[in-house]
Amino acid sequence: MSTGEERAARMALGVLVEPGSRELGELVRARGPLEALDRVVHADRISSALAGAVHARVKAAGVEGSLEVGAQLAERMAEQAERHGARIITAADDEWPVVLDHLVRASRTGNVLRRDTDPPLCVWLRGPLRFAETLERSVSVVGARAITGYGGYVASEFGYGLAEEGWTVVSGAALGVDVTAHRGALASGGPTVAVMACGIDKQYPAANAAVIEQIGAEGLLVTEWPPGTEPHKTRFLTRNRVIAAATKGTVVVEAGSRSGARSTLAYARLLGRSAMAVPGPINSAMSVGCHMELRQENTVLVTRVDEIIEAIGSVGELALPIKGAGRPEDVLDPLQARVLDAVRPRRATTAEQIAAVAGVSGRDARRSLPLLVELGFVTATPDGYRLSSLPQATIGEVEER
Amino acid sequence: MSTGEERAARMALGVLVEPGSRELGELVRARGPLEALDRVVHADRISSALAGAVHARVKAAGVEGSLEVGAQLAERMAEQAERHGARIITAADDEWPVVLDHLVRASRTGNVLRRDTDPPLCVWLRGPLRFAETLERSVSVVGARAITGYGGYVASEFGYGLAEEGWTVVSGAALGVDVTAHRGALASGGPTVAVMACGIDKQYPAANAAVIEQIGAEGLLVTEWPPGTEPHKTRFLTRNRVIAAATKGTVVVEAGSRSGARSTLAYARLLGRSAMAVPGPINSAMSVGCHMELRQENTVLVTRVDEIIEAIGSVGELALPIKGAGRPEDVLDPLQARVLDAVRPRRATTAEQIAAVAGVSGRDARRSLPLLVELGFVTATPDGYRLSSLPQATIGEVEER
Repeated sequence: MSTGEERAARMALGVLVEPGSRELGELVRARGPLEALDRVVHADRISSALAGAVHARVKAAGVEGSLEVGAQLAERMAEQAERHGARIITAADDEWPVVLDHLVRASRTGNVLRRDTDPPLCVWLRGPLRFAETLERSVSVVGARAITGYGGYVASEFGYGLAEEGWTVVSGAALGVDVTAHRGALASGGPTVAVMACGIDKQYPAANAAVIEQIGAEGLLVTEWPPGTEPHKTRFLTRNRVIAAATKGTVVVEAGSRSGARSTLAYARLLGRSAMAVPGPINSAMSVGCHMELRQENTVLVTRVDEIIEAIGSVGELALPIKGAGRPEDVLDPLQARVLDAVRPRRATTAEQIAAVAGVSGRDARRSLPLLVELGFVTATPDGYRLSSLPQATIGEVEER
Repeated sequence: MSTGEERAARMALGVLVEPGSRELGELVRARGPLEALDRVVHADRISSALAGAVHARVKAAGVEGSLEVGAQLAERMAEQAERHGARIITAADDEWPVVLDHLVRASRTGNVLRRDTDPPLCVWLRGPLRFAETLERSVSVVGARAITGYGGYVASEFGYGLAEEGWTVVSGAALGVDVTAHRGALASGGPTVAVMACGIDKQYPAANAAVIEQIGAEGLLVTEWPPGTEPHKTRFLTRNRVIAAATKGTVVVEAGSRSGARSTLAYARLLGRSAMAVPGPINSAMSVGCHMELRQENTVLVTRVDEIIEAIGSVGELALPIKGAGRPEDVLDPLQARVLDAVRPRRATTAEQIAAVAGVSGRDARRSLPLLVELGFVTATPDGYRLSSLPQATIGEVEER
């Protein structure tokens, strides 16, 4: 079981399964990518929904064992990448941004988001910027496709101004706010990243082909989907979680009441990133979504680049949002939840006693307890661990719009 | 010492001293209006600043004793009022809105506001609306004089829509947002109140003379200043405290960064009223002040009449703002503060013991302690009173702009 095989398995899973699957994500985290691939390839102890979804793709691979599928798909992907001047990264690679893994948190509150939002398993990149590094100082600028002149002005100002200050401008290469923000950043000679909902070989929308090519040459094109993949509505929403997770904060420049950009802001809020929106005239339909966001808690009104930088500068990497619906236990994985259930409220017990009650190994209990302490669920005492008397903290409620 | 004499004394003090004086307010609250007038007339145990400020007006009254000054001034004021179709009210009258007395709270945090903001001692009214009654469902709509077309549109919409829903639209009869909001309310046939910074006989600004006359005929004109008084900058700011105190909430429609309307919103916040602002284009100088307010805590972004009504519907009459600079003790008068100083931190003592330590009468101690308990400074126990262990709560910081 080499690192190379694990990497190949992650790559293979990344093309066999549509991105964001919580079931697959939990399986990979619990059992590792090799066993996950094996189960997916043989439709073994996975849901019928997942088995049905991957059936055609597994069959198309045309080989029997999971190791063979993994190796063959990974090889084919590497060839494709080379052909398109791209590279592929997984969590095993240095260029992988760990911030993407914060999406585990969003995925575990999927009941609130009403969609699967697990982290990507592999990502295709094209361009000179290093992904993890360029995201260290980054902000998303997103919004409506059908912008007004006002929205175009603001997107261009913010794109230019942020990039000029050395901040990477991340957006989705769409018409309207996205492309205008990218262009602003390119105009200043600063860094910009386009996260796409299609293959790295596609220039979608066609009207933005020249800008997308320029970003591939000077900035960075990013996608979870293999070459040849067409974008569609579901993929845009799936892609939006990556835009939110990748950056310190998201600014919505203009948005109608049902704009997809509002979902990006909802993800940002859920992930503890800075959620920002630009006000506009109250009689402009393209500002209605921004004003709806600004009437919520934890959304900052921004009118200038320095206000954006001030807001993202104050965001802790792992700040856990604690308002709205959803229970704090939602952030725990099944093992951690089981260990937590075995901790007693008043009398402290040792990790071994807790392991016995939980029916887990002493090692699993000892591994889980420090996180539970850090999250405030459990208090460590000289005699062992007991439950903290925690106020009923909750996770920010988010709806997909 | 009849109620008539007290009422006359309040009226006399209202014209002898510029409105808002904290020194005079404290004196009236501690010693009653008759002794306060006596001291003011004889420059007896009042600050030299106050004595100097009233000297000319007292001399102009041309009589010796304070009772005579009170009676004569009140008589003269009644004549003036009749001549101008107006009436005068004081705290002794049914039509007096008790909400104005909340300004005591703002006055006692005068160190933060950097001005005297005591409640009015008497108010001149002209128009068919009953003052206290019409304020029960009221909202202030204020803003810049030099508005844009956008600001005019919003002020008119809000004035019309609020009055149509039966809410009294309160504003300052100034050019721009004020007069447009008044006109909107008048157009709907709904109630509107203009709080002015000049005599009830003045139509200031002259350009708004017709609207001011119409408000006097259909709504209500309100002022603290006697007939003949000219408005000036300081009086506008003094007047703004009444607009904020009178209503459930204040909406700023458009405001430059240094607009006086921002002071009205600051007073509203300080008084626990709903503070609201309308967003606009970020490149409009007339929205900069609104956006600055909206970036503060406790300011609600509003885009529609129903959002305003929702916000003011949820405001508690006496909600005490508790964030920012200023100490909670600032809300106490000198007697209450003295009693509080005499309460012991751990051991409970009786009201009589506290009175002895404080050097006040037993009656004063027994009268003050229930309020101190209600405000959370003191805990009542079966054995007497002791200090509460209070977190360092603070009063909202406000700056005059």
